[in-house]
Amino acid sequence: MSGIPRRRLFGYAGAGVALAGAGAAVGALAAAPPAVRPAASLADAVPFDGEHQAGIVTPAQDRMHFVALDVKTTKRDELVGLLKDWTVAARRMTEGREAAELGAVGGRPEAPPKDTGEALGLAASALTLTIGFGPSLFDDRFGLKDLRPAGLIDLPRFPRDDLDERRSGGDLCVQACANDPQVAVHAIRNLVRIGFGRVAVRWSQLGFGRTSSTTRDQATPRNLFGFKDGTNNIKAEDADALRDHVWVTADDGPRWLVGGTYLVARRIRMHVEIWDRTSLAEQEDLVGRTKGSGAPLGQVDEFDPVDLHVRGAGGAPRIAADAHVRLASAESLGGARILRRGYNFTDGTDGLGHLDAGLFFIAFNRDTARQFVPMQQALSTKDRMMEYLEHTGSGHFAVPPGVREGGYWGDTLFA
Amino acid sequence: MSGIPRRRLFGYAGAGVALAGAGAAVGALAAAPPAVRPAASLADAVPFDGEHQAGIVTPAQDRMHFVALDVKTTKRDELVGLLKDWTVAARRMTEGREAAELGAVGGRPEAPPKDTGEALGLAASALTLTIGFGPSLFDDRFGLKDLRPAGLIDLPRFPRDDLDERRSGGDLCVQACANDPQVAVHAIRNLVRIGFGRVAVRWSQLGFGRTSSTTRDQATPRNLFGFKDGTNNIKAEDADALRDHVWVTADDGPRWLVGGTYLVARRIRMHVEIWDRTSLAEQEDLVGRTKGSGAPLGQVDEFDPVDLHVRGAGGAPRIAADAHVRLASAESLGGARILRRGYNFTDGTDGLGHLDAGLFFIAFNRDTARQFVPMQQALSTKDRMMEYLEHTGSGHFAVPPGVREGGYWGDTLFA
Repeated sequence: MSGIPRRRLFGYAGAGVALAGAGAAVGALAAAPPAVRPAASLADAVPFDGEHQAGIVTPAQDRMHFVALDVKTTKRDELVGLLKDWTVAARRMTEGREAAELGAVGGRPEAPPKDTGEALGLAASALTLTIGFGPSLFDDRFGLKDLRPAGLIDLPRFPRDDLDERRSGGDLCVQACANDPQVAVHAIRNLVRIGFGRVAVRWSQLGFGRTSSTTRDQATPRNLFGFKDGTNNIKAEDADALRDHVWVTADDGPRWLVGGTYLVARRIRMHVEIWDRTSLAEQEDLVGRTKGSGAPLGQVDEFDPVDLHVRGAGGAPRIAADAHVRLASAESLGGARILRRGYNFTDGTDGLGHLDAGLFFIAFNRDTARQFVPMQQALSTKDRMMEYLEHTGSGHFAVPPGVREGGYWGDTLFA
Repeated sequence: MSGIPRRRLFGYAGAGVALAGAGAAVGALAAAPPAVRPAASLADAVPFDGEHQAGIVTPAQDRMHFVALDVKTTKRDELVGLLKDWTVAARRMTEGREAAELGAVGGRPEAPPKDTGEALGLAASALTLTIGFGPSLFDDRFGLKDLRPAGLIDLPRFPRDDLDERRSGGDLCVQACANDPQVAVHAIRNLVRIGFGRVAVRWSQLGFGRTSSTTRDQATPRNLFGFKDGTNNIKAEDADALRDHVWVTADDGPRWLVGGTYLVARRIRMHVEIWDRTSLAEQEDLVGRTKGSGAPLGQVDEFDPVDLHVRGAGGAPRIAADAHVRLASAESLGGARILRRGYNFTDGTDGLGHLDAGLFFIAFNRDTARQFVPMQQALSTKDRMMEYLEHTGSGHFAVPPGVREGGYWGDTLFA
C-alpha cells in the first residue's frame, strides 16, 4: 500500500509542525489583513478587541473547550451586567492574566478567590474567547424578540439526525480555544463561575485536537478517520472569501450583527470501529481524497484543486457522485463555502464496547440557510460517509461583532 | 489577597515550563538512573523495552488516554496472541511509527489500513503505553487463578464512594501518555482495533493536563481546585523511594510480577462550582498549603518540608487535623507513600448546570493494601475536602514488569 507514507519518513514532523505553526503566526502578522490578529507565538496573547471577535479567523489553536449556557435570570439588566462582567474577565484572561485583579473578593482571605487558580503560571497560550447568542435568547424574556436576526434560523431536522437535547441548543455559547487545554478549560470554568445564578451550563465539549487550519501556513491536521481535514477551508488571508462567506454585512442585517457571523456546532460521533474495518480503497472513495497525502483523487498533491470531472477506468468519475468532497464542494453547492474550525474529541465509551469519539464540528458562515444547511442537506442525504457518522448534538448561534475598546460582548444588541 | 501571585508576574512562564520540561528531560538523561528513560525532548521517543514498563517513572507527559477492557475470547492462546500483537504495535507506536509496517493488510488497497492514520506526520511525542491486569483476569477462563497476586486485592468500598460500574474494573487496562493528545488517543484506538473480537472497551478516560511531576525538574502542575498537586510526589531520581514504595520485589511475589507494580485508578469528580464559592482561607486550610506558592502552611516555599507540628495563633496546629496534606502524609501513614500520575479531566456536563470535571487519579504502589488503601481510608473518612469530591470510578491492576527485547507484554505471567 503506497498511499500512506510511513510516519518514520516524516522524521519528527510533529515538532516541525509546532515550529511551522509559530512561524506561520509570525509570517501572518506581517502579511495578513488586520482581521487575522494572530499571537506572535503559540504561547502569546491574541488581542481581544477588534472589528471581529477573535477565535474565528485566528490561526486555529490546538485545543478547545466549548460551552452552551441557559440564562437563568429573567432581568435584562442582569443579563447585560453578566456580559459586561464576562468581557472584563475575558479581556484579562486572553492577556494571560487571571480573571480578576485581586485574588479574593475585596482582597480578604475570608472571601472566595476571584480566580480559580489552575492557570496560574501558564502563558496566554493564544487563548481566544468567542461568544454567540442562540435563537432562544430572542424570546420574550429580555425584549430582544424584534432583534432576532432572520438568519438565526432554527436548524431543520436533517435526515439521520440523532440529536440529544442535552447536547443541543442554548441561549448563549462561548468557544474557548488555546494551545494549552488547561488555559481553555480555566477560561470557561471562570466565566461559568462569574455567571453563577445568572446562567447555568447546558452542555459543554472538550476538543483535544484541531481538525482545521485557518491560515495558509498551518499544517492540515487529521480527523479521527485518519484523513487530512479542511484542506480547502476558507483561510484568513483570503479577504474576499471572508467577505463573501463569513462576515454579516449591512445588506444582510440586522444592524447589530454587522461584522459578526453565525456559528453552527454539531457534535458528530464517528463510528471509528466500523470505519477501521473498511478497506483503504473504500475509505478513499468515500472521502474523495487519498489518505496519505490528502490529494484529491485523480490529483497528486494535497493542495491540487479538486477536479470533479476527472474520469478513471471505464469512464466513471474518479470522485464518485456520493463522495464527501464532491457533495461538500462549492461547485456542487452553487458557490457556497463555510469556514470550519472543528476539533477531535473522545468522551469515554458508549457502553457497547466502543470509544465515544468523533469530531466536534464548528463552522462560521454569513447565512446559515444558504451555506451550512444546503451543505448538510446534501451530506445527510447522499454522503455514503454518513453510514459511519451520527450527529448527536447541534447548536446555532449569532456571533456578534468584535468589541471596541471600552465596549462589552454584544453591546450592539443591547444599545 | 497576597497569597496568589498575579499571573502577569509570572511573565510567560508557561512557555518557560515547556522549555524547562524539555531541559529537564535532557538533564535527567545524564543524571538519572536507567529506570527513568526519558525522551530527549517533548517530541522524542521513550524506549519501550526495559526492566520496568515505561509510563511509570517517565517524566509525566502532558496528556493521557486511559482505557479499561474486557477480554471477550475465552481462549488462553488468543489472549496471549493479543498481547503479542499489542506489543509489536506498542513498540512501533512509541517509536513514532504507525501501528504496523504496511498501510493495508497484505499491502492491498482492498484491505483495511493497518493503521488508522490520524497520527501520520506527528512526532513520537514521548508516548508511553503501560499495561495492567485486573483481578477479573485471574478467574477460571485462562488458567491464571493460581497466579493472581495476593497484592491484587479487590479494593474495599470506601466511605462516600459513589462508583459507577460502567467506569470501574476491567480485565485489562492500558495507560497511554504523550505530549500530543492525538498521539495518545491514536495509540489506544489502534490497540482496541487490533483487539477487535478479542477485547471490548469497558471504559475510557481522556486526561487533558497532568497533575503530577515525576522528575525533580518538572514544574508542579495545578489541579482543578487551583492548587499545585504532587509537590511531595515520589520522583524518578529517588531510587530508594522507588524501591521501597513502587516496585514489587521477589520478597513480595509472585515471581512473574517482580519489577512490576500495582496501578490504582480513581475517577474523582470535583464539585468545582461549590469549591469556587469557598473562601481562600478555607481552601488553604482544607489543603494545608497556600494556593499561590504551594508552600505548606507555616512555611515559605513550595518544597519546604511539611511540618505537621507548627502551631499558629492560640496554639492550634497550623495544618489542621483534617487537612489533606496531613492525612495523606507519610508521617501520618506509618511511612506509606505512593507514586501519583494523575490528570485533570472534563467530560462535559452533569445535566444539572455544572461542568463534569475533576481529577483522574492514577497511583503506582508496591502494596496497595498497605499504601493506597490506608491513605484513601484516612482521606475518605477524615478529609474535609471530601465534601467537594466524588469518587465515580475505580480500578486496580497488576502492572507486569518491563518487556525485554523479543518479549511481549505480560510474558512472565504466561511463561
